[in-house]
Amino acid sequence: MEQTIVEKIFSRRCKKDVFAGEVVMAPVDGAMMHDITGPLAIEKFYEMGGTKVFDPKKVIMLFDHQTPADSLNAAENQKKMRAFGKEQGILNYDIKEGVCHQVTLEKGRVCPGDIVIGGDSHTCTYGAVGAFATGVGSTDLGFALRYGCLYFRVPESIRADITGKFAKRVGAKDLILKIIKEITVDGATYKAVEFTGDTVSSMPMPGRMTCCNMAIEMGGKAGIVPPDQITTEYLKGRTSCPPIDLTSDDGASYLSRMEFDVGDLVPQVAVPHNVDQVVDVDKIAGTPVDQVFIGSCTNGRFEDMQEVAEVLGDRSFSDNVRVLVIPASKPEYLKTLRAGIIERFVEAGALVEAPCCGPCMGGSFGLIASGEVSFSTSNRNFKGRQGSTEGKVYLGSAATAAATAINGVITDPREV
Amino acid sequence: MEQTIVEKIFSRRCKKDVFAGEVVMAPVDGAMMHDITGPLAIEKFYEMGGTKVFDPKKVIMLFDHQTPADSLNAAENQKKMRAFGKEQGILNYDIKEGVCHQVTLEKGRVCPGDIVIGGDSHTCTYGAVGAFATGVGSTDLGFALRYGCLYFRVPESIRADITGKFAKRVGAKDLILKIIKEITVDGATYKAVEFTGDTVSSMPMPGRMTCCNMAIEMGGKAGIVPPDQITTEYLKGRTSCPPIDLTSDDGASYLSRMEFDVGDLVPQVAVPHNVDQVVDVDKIAGTPVDQVFIGSCTNGRFEDMQEVAEVLGDRSFSDNVRVLVIPASKPEYLKTLRAGIIERFVEAGALVEAPCCGPCMGGSFGLIASGEVSFSTSNRNFKGRQGSTEGKVYLGSAATAAATAINGVITDPREV
Repeated sequence: MEQTIVEKIFSRRCKKDVFAGEVVMAPVDGAMMHDITGPLAIEKFYEMGGTKVFDPKKVIMLFDHQTPADSLNAAENQKKMRAFGKEQGILNYDIKEGVCHQVTLEKGRVCPGDIVIGGDSHTCTYGAVGAFATGVGSTDLGFALRYGCLYFRVPESIRADITGKFAKRVGAKDLILKIIKEITVDGATYKAVEFTGDTVSSMPMPGRMTCCNMAIEMGGKAGIVPPDQITTEYLKGRTSCPPIDLTSDDGASYLSRMEFDVGDLVPQVAVPHNVDQVVDVDKIAGTPVDQVFIGSCTNGRFEDMQEVAEVLGDRSFSDNVRVLVIPASKPEYLKTLRAGIIERFVEAGALVEAPCCGPCMGGSFGLIASGEVSFSTSNRNFKGRQGSTEGKVYLGSAATAAATAINGVITDPREV
Repeated sequence: MEQTIVEKIFSRRCKKDVFAGEVVMAPVDGAMMHDITGPLAIEKFYEMGGTKVFDPKKVIMLFDHQTPADSLNAAENQKKMRAFGKEQGILNYDIKEGVCHQVTLEKGRVCPGDIVIGGDSHTCTYGAVGAFATGVGSTDLGFALRYGCLYFRVPESIRADITGKFAKRVGAKDLILKIIKEITVDGATYKAVEFTGDTVSSMPMPGRMTCCNMAIEMGGKAGIVPPDQITTEYLKGRTSCPPIDLTSDDGASYLSRMEFDVGDLVPQVAVPHNVDQVVDVDKIAGTPVDQVFIGSCTNGRFEDMQEVAEVLGDRSFSDNVRVLVIPASKPEYLKTLRAGIIERFVEAGALVEAPCCGPCMGGSFGLIASGEVSFSTSNRNFKGRQGSTEGKVYLGSAATAAATAINGVITDPREV
């Protein structure tokens, strides 16, 4: 019987043919833990009688959410995790590498066809390399640390066929916001969203990461892009993955199939307070903002920084806006720096911080006050997400964030 | 009657000859307010019936302690201060320029002979340009905002005559730690510490700032260096100060005069938990550290970064240490970046953050956990200063911090 890519991954790893709806105990090829959900996962691991993790080489550990430690509690949590990592022989990237999802991929910790979990909802990012990856709670993570496997209900898939060529200053973030608008915040609950079509097969890895990253914003269990030559190129030098041929069969069964043509797509913005409240940028152009955040696992890569630099040119950011730029990882930071872009950003009035999650989840730094407005390249705009519940968060692409930071009001990046 | 430099400043500004011990109502030439003490000062200003500040051009406003806003409270405080600044026509550097004392000096907000106050204990830093500058509480700051003047008891002076040439990797920070050891943490309470002698008159401005910055660590009301050609050079292009001839008279009356020869000075380290607990570095060499902080108003200037880079060479920082580097201001950051030093630091494993106070006072980010050890180029090592009260903070120069960050244990910078 013909299978979706996700069914194929579960069949391969469970060593039997499985299909959507079946519940399986599947081995876990990677388990990512960070400073927020890690400590509880460790507690659960011990509660379940754990002494040694299933495979220290398959555990990815780093700190990114509250770093450098922003409270005594954070400092103590990180200390505990360091001790655990040392005791268990786990390679711990600590606070030194950046945002978990970016680091996990760029360190070659995920191969196509893998099943990977993480104690973070945006673990679905790893679908960008053709893995089945999903966020789990700390109890599930603790279980996986102990037993190296986890129960899954093999998800049905929604297929999004994307065709057409992006206009200038329009890209993957606008596309995924458009898709979320269509599917809605719970329209893909517990489904895998498979991204296919010409636009995706020619999309560089950063865009694929952006799309898969936000699958969870439709309720998706996973987002996935079939691995191809671009995937192979990305993985080269990072890790050596066994060769794998992994695409959905033509006759595979989908819950639904949707088609998107990006040819006439314009910059999209998610307005407060839900990620599916998406409008064309012109609908809210002119809205004043207090802070612009450029970064996160969604849009903190070199290509995003490059796009911001292109939009910025030799201008300055608005005096009325606090512009926070945080490249998502050490390599992305260094690429940005070496391209002269960090210098340009700082000259233009931005603060460039060391790689971490930063203001994305409002728990560390860059919080907004009541009545303040943030424009952010990250993935969530829930009430209070970046600080005060009386504040507002708009989400958009790096290009739109750049244009907005220049003008101090939400701005169509094609018009600056 | 012959006068000290501090008596001359008060006499000049009060338009009558005054001497140590006298209480005067003196005009204030500058009042600095930041995000921690500013909000209360504004409250006091209004409580005293204030409507318009005495002179918006003489008020220096910026945010550096809890930036980018690390809590809802910080975000709301900064929002209030922004509104006050706007209402009062005060130029507000906001979160964009860096650490208050560095920014105040580099923006040319202080002239030799000025009387300047600030809502921060290290306001004494401005003595580096030959001003009388002192930290005040929020009530005094509120009073000065309203009336443009403040009661002062003209302080007695302690004169520190410094001679000799620093050995390589030894400098102003080692000198001031040595002086504090000698004078003790309360040995200069309410006194002005006047730094003179060949070593000081040839000392570039960054070193003068470091010395004056830490006058408060002996209880000093102020630290001061007589203005000279180096001062004039520093001020050039920043501001135009009226010409002033300002040195203590030969027969001026000092509480005490001390002599220091730096020729045989070795790197000094303040050990937990007081700034006057100072030892030669070899006494505690080998002590493991968890975090190294290079930055602050004490040692966050380009020259400090350059010294770290020289010590580092093409090596890496220790894997076991979190190295946080925070240039003290935007210009210092840009100079460091353009010299290729930020790239080198990041390659070597450091996190470089945008200019702010950072871990210095343990209220923002970079907190240490219980049992952890910080080596810091900042100015205070009180119990809990950088996080847990069960942690330890050692203070030293940028060179010693660099050597320590490389080896992961406190290290004599002359030996790496």
